[in-house]
Amino acid sequence: MENYIYGRNNVEELLKDETRSISKILLMKGIGSSSKINSIINLAKQRGVVYQFIPKEKFMQYKDISHQGVIAYVAPVKYTEFSDFIKKEKKYKKVIITDGVEDPHNLGSIIRTAVCAGFDAVIFPSRRNASINATVEKASAGAVNRIDIIMVNSLISIIDRLKDNDFWIIATDINAKDNYYDIDYCNMNFAIVMGSEKAGVSTAILKKADYRVKIPMLNEFDSLNVANAASIVIYESVKQLIQKSENDV
Amino acid sequence: MENYIYGRNNVEELLKDETRSISKILLMKGIGSSSKINSIINLAKQRGVVYQFIPKEKFMQYKDISHQGVIAYVAPVKYTEFSDFIKKEKKYKKVIITDGVEDPHNLGSIIRTAVCAGFDAVIFPSRRNASINATVEKASAGAVNRIDIIMVNSLISIIDRLKDNDFWIIATDINAKDNYYDIDYCNMNFAIVMGSEKAGVSTAILKKADYRVKIPMLNEFDSLNVANAASIVIYESVKQLIQKSENDV
Repeated sequence: MENYIYGRNNVEELLKDETRSISKILLMKGIGSSSKINSIINLAKQRGVVYQFIPKEKFMQYKDISHQGVIAYVAPVKYTEFSDFIKKEKKYKKVIITDGVEDPHNLGSIIRTAVCAGFDAVIFPSRRNASINATVEKASAGAVNRIDIIMVNSLISIIDRLKDNDFWIIATDINAKDNYYDIDYCNMNFAIVMGSEKAGVSTAILKKADYRVKIPMLNEFDSLNVANAASIVIYESVKQLIQKSENDV
Repeated sequence: MENYIYGRNNVEELLKDETRSISKILLMKGIGSSSKINSIINLAKQRGVVYQFIPKEKFMQYKDISHQGVIAYVAPVKYTEFSDFIKKEKKYKKVIITDGVEDPHNLGSIIRTAVCAGFDAVIFPSRRNASINATVEKASAGAVNRIDIIMVNSLISIIDRLKDNDFWIIATDINAKDNYYDIDYCNMNFAIVMGSEKAGVSTAILKKADYRVKIPMLNEFDSLNVANAASIVIYESVKQLIQKSENDV
């Protein structure tokens, strides 16, 4: 199944990324000629990508997305096999696992943060979790193509395999005793596990975790958005790793 | 103008919050009786809130939102006057300012994080920034009613007034030299300024800032989502304040 990317900025960015294979671009008839549209058409010409002007009525099928009159059809994102990922040579690997993140905006946003933070992979289960679609890709600002995306049938067995490969499993849990900044993210492979928007990390995975950490709440309030929570924990690890490398010099 | 809240979980949460004034609840005819719908109807009865079953066709005007057959009309969120906020007695106040955050999901999500982090106010300009609407309220998970929300005509003059009142202004800027964790958030009033999704913090405000800080990028990639970036900086301040209070004991 083909995927599509929508919106003027996103399609322009897509055209600039020579690693992406684009099958065609749809433009809405009567869209006019802004500098952005001209840039999209020029880039399509340069790359030899087919573009078509189609009537407004045909865009009705996309009415629920903010396409701004521009849609590009692309090859679907390639998933990485876990076994290929684990074979890659790297001193320490950093992974984020989502255990039931259902909102595609949240998944996309987590992938974007993982790329900014230099993480190596995002792992999620094939059920009860968003998978990569156009909304995820847009929310990721294109980051889905900059990191290994691994979709697995059983998170439990992947966590066992990560542990067999010297990964430490850090699960977020609002009932944890330790705060997320109490642990040392340096000198180890680690996987941070974020739970679903409603139920958090599942009990079976919490049991397998080497660490459980919480993000402290300074108000009696439900909880953080999961993508924001992921960013907070991910960047604590970034900070520690940067500070360590500065001290080591 | 009235605001509305949509979705089964959100309307149920709204009904539980006795501080909110609800004018009516609309339910879609033929919605059936799930435990969630029953809970909404029972809560409405308890609180004496009017609820109506209306035909599916009348829900068509809400077709772009995921209302799940349930919509509640509520009094709009009350904005706080800056002068009232500044008069409040508190040893150190913590504020987040958004300078042109246009996506309502981002604004809502930032407000949610600010509440979790025990911040005192969210300030934004009346132009070129989302204001509080149903989408913001939903993305905030109801947090808009748990913090002072201040909408101002001129951010520049508000920043001057914050400085006159012993606030330190911390602006995020991808070109800054210092990282966000290089500064000490303790023992002062401070305001963290987040910029627009596209252009960041405006130059005029960057010039007025006491600190400019960046979030380090470990990949050549555009940037973080603004709500995630806000969460990272906000929680660095939370961490420092918690660690300080633990050391002071």
